[in-house]
Amino acid sequence: MRIPKHIGIIPDGNRRWAVENGIKKEEGYDKGISPGMTLYHLCKDLGVEEMTFYGFTADNTKRPSVQRQAFSKACIKAVEVLSKENAQLLVLGKTSSAMFPDELKPYTKRVCFGTGGMKINFLINYSWEWDLGLSDGTIGPELKTSDVSRMDLIIRWGGRRRLSGFLPVQSVYSDLYVVDDYWPDFKTDHVYNALEWYSRQDVTLGG
Amino acid sequence: MRIPKHIGIIPDGNRRWAVENGIKKEEGYDKGISPGMTLYHLCKDLGVEEMTFYGFTADNTKRPSVQRQAFSKACIKAVEVLSKENAQLLVLGKTSSAMFPDELKPYTKRVCFGTGGMKINFLINYSWEWDLGLSDGTIGPELKTSDVSRMDLIIRWGGRRRLSGFLPVQSVYSDLYVVDDYWPDFKTDHVYNALEWYSRQDVTLGG
Repeated sequence: MRIPKHIGIIPDGNRRWAVENGIKKEEGYDKGISPGMTLYHLCKDLGVEEMTFYGFTADNTKRPSVQRQAFSKACIKAVEVLSKENAQLLVLGKTSSAMFPDELKPYTKRVCFGTGGMKINFLINYSWEWDLGLSDGTIGPELKTSDVSRMDLIIRWGGRRRLSGFLPVQSVYSDLYVVDDYWPDFKTDHVYNALEWYSRQDVTLGG
Repeated sequence: MRIPKHIGIIPDGNRRWAVENGIKKEEGYDKGISPGMTLYHLCKDLGVEEMTFYGFTADNTKRPSVQRQAFSKACIKAVEVLSKENAQLLVLGKTSSAMFPDELKPYTKRVCFGTGGMKINFLINYSWEWDLGLSDGTIGPELKTSDVSRMDLIIRWGGRRRLSGFLPVQSVYSDLYVVDDYWPDFKTDHVYNALEWYSRQDVTLGG
């Protein structure tokens, strides 16, 4: 099976899952950490070299503050859990805003956990306008995310067939696989199905 | 039914259609003009305000020259046919290259056909790097395609679940609907199914 070098992950559906399971919307985010770790181990074992997780966006921070606090906390906790594994973590997002958690600032330069290995990029308070330099007027010769490579495959949970501003440049040639289940209902079969489908796609890179 | 204001069209599969129908690959492109006109009339009647068609990319011009000539000719012919309708046409792409057809240069500023009405954007020798200013070093405060609005819905024919470099900025929040049939096998039901699906999607614009 042809394994993608770099997989992007859009872990959507935490709030809808919470509502369907009779808990408060903001309580859904914490249920996303364990699936993320299972997914990391699975992809590592398959030889995936790089993964990018869509944590939260600057737009997301306009939601009710109880939700904002909950998803920020879940992202911080995810990094704490990951720090006990082998990985190279880079957190990318608008650090100049108060919405960027102080706890994650040490990771805005790539940090090696354990023996290193898989590159993990985690988008935190990310904004595609910021990435492209469209919002702050500091248009430079490089993307803010120039350290993030082209994504081969993007897997999105939660049924929506869109990118929602996820790395517009690195996603130009990505194959997009959508899982209808919500992210907290993650199953390893979702990933095996995505990889089986991906391995049947031809890679043309726009050619 | 909620009708998208702006629909992007990726008319893929002409060559695969040709092979399956026993004609030469390059003969497939000419079969794409009539579906495009049917689609234009259908969307116009539904009240769609703007459509963007992915004609060909700078990357596509690296294909065998007989194919390149065939898809260029089909695009020129499509504009000739459209010029007899009511529309406002804008052609966007790298005009500085020899791959850009002279016949389409008059349309690189928006031109009104008949009584005007629907905006039609036609990407010709387009490149996302060019659009973002990443390739030519002339990084400006605006996209090269700043006159093209955000796309609500993208419909792609030919089964591939990817954007292939199609307007990375205008597609950030677009819903992507994939038709497995090849573009020359266009049916109006493809569009009605896409619109029915689209009208069930929530519009969050990243929020």
